[in-house]
Amino acid sequence: MECPLCATNRGDLVWQDECCRVITGNDSAYPGYFRVVWSEHISEMSDLDACARRHFMDVVLAVESSLRAMMNPDKINLASLGNKVPHLHWHVIARFADDRHFPESIWGCEQRCAPTRSAPDCTVLAALISIELDRVD
Amino acid sequence: MECPLCATNRGDLVWQDECCRVITGNDSAYPGYFRVVWSEHISEMSDLDACARRHFMDVVLAVESSLRAMMNPDKINLASLGNKVPHLHWHVIARFADDRHFPESIWGCEQRCAPTRSAPDCTVLAALISIELDRVD
Repeated sequence: MECPLCATNRGDLVWQDECCRVITGNDSAYPGYFRVVWSEHISEMSDLDACARRHFMDVVLAVESSLRAMMNPDKINLASLGNKVPHLHWHVIARFADDRHFPESIWGCEQRCAPTRSAPDCTVLAALISIELDRVD
Repeated sequence: MECPLCATNRGDLVWQDECCRVITGNDSAYPGYFRVVWSEHISEMSDLDACARRHFMDVVLAVESSLRAMMNPDKINLASLGNKVPHLHWHVIARFADDRHFPESIWGCEQRCAPTRSAPDCTVLAALISIELDRVD
């Protein structure tokens, strides 16, 4: 069976380099939900060498910092699961105390109907990601 | 209200350095569940400077590598959530296709009663974590 993260972008492309891409999570309940996908089809962080691990986390945390700056969330959730799609990718999710699952994970039980929030502008988000990465290089 | 991760170890101590500690997850359904806790009370990865972020992830991924070597799991799950306890910590979980929630996250719906598995020997785990960290330094 073809890997869905190899076959397509699987989300709107926000940012990319030669190693990975940032895509929208496409979940209307979570406008601050993005995925960071490693380009090569591997399954675990520890399959990467030390340099690649660090670069990938730099990108993940650049998305985190950018979402904090743009959305001022109550919490950031980070996760690399891949039980259903074992192609290395991170979930970066801006969480709010009044969102659908808070304080549960977004994979837990729904707690409430949530207010609608605007998604961050993806052009601005991409620019902030690049600025954050320049800071850590 | 006092932070539970500041007040106590909150799990059996497996490994520690001056920055962080590895503790058992104490979940009988998940013997390969460990937490990596940053010592200082901060809430997000992006509150750390670049050097500290990298060290913390090196420890998280040393736990991942060690669990893979000791337990040969079907998947590793990594997560930094902190919605209930906003003191920076990572969940590192060895997952098996026949465990209680697979392929859902452990915060999702239970899928089945799971077979009992042995927990890894914490002394061996601590030794492997140190060896892994020596490799990336």
